[in-house]
Amino acid sequence: MDFFNVISVDEVKKILSNNFKNMKIETEIVNILECEGRVLSNDIVSKFNVPEFNRSTVDGYAIKSKESHGCSECMPTFLDIVGEVSMGESASGDIKSGECMYVPTGGMIPNSSDAVIMIEHAEKLDEFTIAIHKPTSTGENVVYKGDDIKKDQIVIKKGKKLNSQDIGVLAALGVNEIEVYRTIKFTVISTGDEIIDLDEDLEFGKIRDINGYAICSLIKKLGGVVVKKSIVKDDYNLLREEVQFGIDNSDIVLLSGGSSVGTRDFTHDVINSFNGQGVLVHGVALKPGKPTIIGECENKVVIGLPGHPVSAIIVFKIFIEHLVNEILEINENKYLIDAIINQNLHSSPGKKTYQMVSLEEIDNKYYATPIFGKSSMITLLSKACGYVIIDENCEGLYKKEKVKVHLL
Amino acid sequence: MDFFNVISVDEVKKILSNNFKNMKIETEIVNILECEGRVLSNDIVSKFNVPEFNRSTVDGYAIKSKESHGCSECMPTFLDIVGEVSMGESASGDIKSGECMYVPTGGMIPNSSDAVIMIEHAEKLDEFTIAIHKPTSTGENVVYKGDDIKKDQIVIKKGKKLNSQDIGVLAALGVNEIEVYRTIKFTVISTGDEIIDLDEDLEFGKIRDINGYAICSLIKKLGGVVVKKSIVKDDYNLLREEVQFGIDNSDIVLLSGGSSVGTRDFTHDVINSFNGQGVLVHGVALKPGKPTIIGECENKVVIGLPGHPVSAIIVFKIFIEHLVNEILEINENKYLIDAIINQNLHSSPGKKTYQMVSLEEIDNKYYATPIFGKSSMITLLSKACGYVIIDENCEGLYKKEKVKVHLL
Repeated sequence: MDFFNVISVDEVKKILSNNFKNMKIETEIVNILECEGRVLSNDIVSKFNVPEFNRSTVDGYAIKSKESHGCSECMPTFLDIVGEVSMGESASGDIKSGECMYVPTGGMIPNSSDAVIMIEHAEKLDEFTIAIHKPTSTGENVVYKGDDIKKDQIVIKKGKKLNSQDIGVLAALGVNEIEVYRTIKFTVISTGDEIIDLDEDLEFGKIRDINGYAICSLIKKLGGVVVKKSIVKDDYNLLREEVQFGIDNSDIVLLSGGSSVGTRDFTHDVINSFNGQGVLVHGVALKPGKPTIIGECENKVVIGLPGHPVSAIIVFKIFIEHLVNEILEINENKYLIDAIINQNLHSSPGKKTYQMVSLEEIDNKYYATPIFGKSSMITLLSKACGYVIIDENCEGLYKKEKVKVHLL
Repeated sequence: MDFFNVISVDEVKKILSNNFKNMKIETEIVNILECEGRVLSNDIVSKFNVPEFNRSTVDGYAIKSKESHGCSECMPTFLDIVGEVSMGESASGDIKSGECMYVPTGGMIPNSSDAVIMIEHAEKLDEFTIAIHKPTSTGENVVYKGDDIKKDQIVIKKGKKLNSQDIGVLAALGVNEIEVYRTIKFTVISTGDEIIDLDEDLEFGKIRDINGYAICSLIKKLGGVVVKKSIVKDDYNLLREEVQFGIDNSDIVLLSGGSSVGTRDFTHDVINSFNGQGVLVHGVALKPGKPTIIGECENKVVIGLPGHPVSAIIVFKIFIEHLVNEILEINENKYLIDAIINQNLHSSPGKKTYQMVSLEEIDNKYYATPIFGKSSMITLLSKACGYVIIDENCEGLYKKEKVKVHLL
């Protein structure tokens, strides 16, 4: 069992980074309506000031703010209305001392004005005159040219997974077509004589392909695309053929099942049969997920996930997400949920333990309940909303201890 | 201004629920590979036991557990290997007292066995004999028939937004085609003479359509589909025509801009011009987001979002998400992030205040920094990762107070 040389989760992450960080992924141009969730491949630099003119943020009267100084309820300032700025038009004309101009929300204010009095705060005496009762200061209810975004400013950094707010920023800049990394391509292979597909009859001794479908869904959620999903019997040649297809047509090949020390374990040998470094990792100090196998074949990543659904999903969350983040240089913060564990929890010394939990809110606090059961049980997962991590050198958690929950 | 009768956020939610909860949305059948994020329209009931047979969770020897009782390092129990279960095959034959059978991970165990000894814990003496040194108990390393899912059990409830784990469960049950609600259809209309599209030249006084694009992205993320996105000038007839298109072709019509008390505010009048209840809400005790307008036209929802991007996104998150959850009876937990606010924060008495914040992690704790700026500023949003809510009857937050952050 020389290949079962278990290493730590952090070491595995380092191996993935070192070997695949520089994997070349092309870019493509997508329309702004299609870029949600895509990863930016270049910094977005503004070619303009936003806004390009001084705008009012309210419906009101543009004034010179100093005209309002000293006014009060009993000593109002009177101003002549000398015009109206139409929405979407530039201010025709300007205001002089003692004058004001009506401006709608979003409208351009006249050059010499520096504040806007909300209509609610201006008393309209007649068609041509308002009275104001409260002093205002320069910049009140105004957004100045470039206040929001300055010309030549880096507005969104390379590696950003574009969200709705980013898309608003792109629209503000008039960026219609955006350069993003193409989606990462995956091949998903479920291995095992016992695995049958969903449309096959369930004979005694067979089980449905659970992992294949769960993994395809995880890939989709991660922003990747599945080029091919297949089920392969325990046969070296058939498996090698499918992996060859995956190497030729995708960036990452994911196998599941067949990476345990069973008699029909061919994953290891298949990975070593291609040009490249072959098996880089076989066995991780991780519970569940120990029999994970990682290799490099013809500059592509081939990963054997454990056969048990819970383990396969955990390993995907830990290593595949990390790998994709490294390849596309994604900088994304994951926020963890503070919770209190509501029972004692043992861990496996020397292994990083990932314990699935459900969460319940009581009195504004979250309580995490560990979900126990054999790791082959898929219903474990449907009850779980996240997991807690217990470190290698920690013996476990005591009831009422604070934990951080990683959402699934 | 009789129509500016401001009501609370909770009242608005109630009005949305009461009026649109029973909106009829058809269902459709999708393949399991396409159902990620879709909303289940019927309970999923298992027609089988999962697993359908007693399975081993390890590579090892199936035994009768009581045979191991009393054995120890110096007093091993010897067992005859009477065969091997092949993966994916039913166990041929059975074991008697003093016998064991090799079973691979996931393999079926013989009828009369009730535990499996891991190969690592069995000493293979020769081809036909093993010695075991540690007692085991019934059920050890075995998943029994129906342990995971029982026949006729409700496995996933109606209203679930299907995630990877659910998809694993569906696969385990052999469910290939799934009945889900069709995606909610939206029409998105940006209104205002000043609004231009991304491919138009930016003249003085004009601004880009920020909201339209940000809202389309929010809809996509929510699982909806945009039937049409358009920009309409401030013209009653043009606006009415677009809203008519939206009512005819979608479930929810979202307008943005034009809902403030400007001179060219036609949204209110257009909503009242259709058959139906017309305007239900105009003005919410919400900051930002006061000028929100909600109406019912020909049994469809028409909502006027505020013109400022930050306000429009906040109102979408509060009301449109709530509305879609109600219509599709989605039961989904949103988990909030515990953080410490790192400056004093004022609120508006009588209004629910939604304050955008950024989050920073220091010493295992999250600190929330309020992002200030005029609500027309889109860059505010790109810095924000969530918001905190300050209640109507709370005067604000003190620095170092604990807050709950809603992620955007």
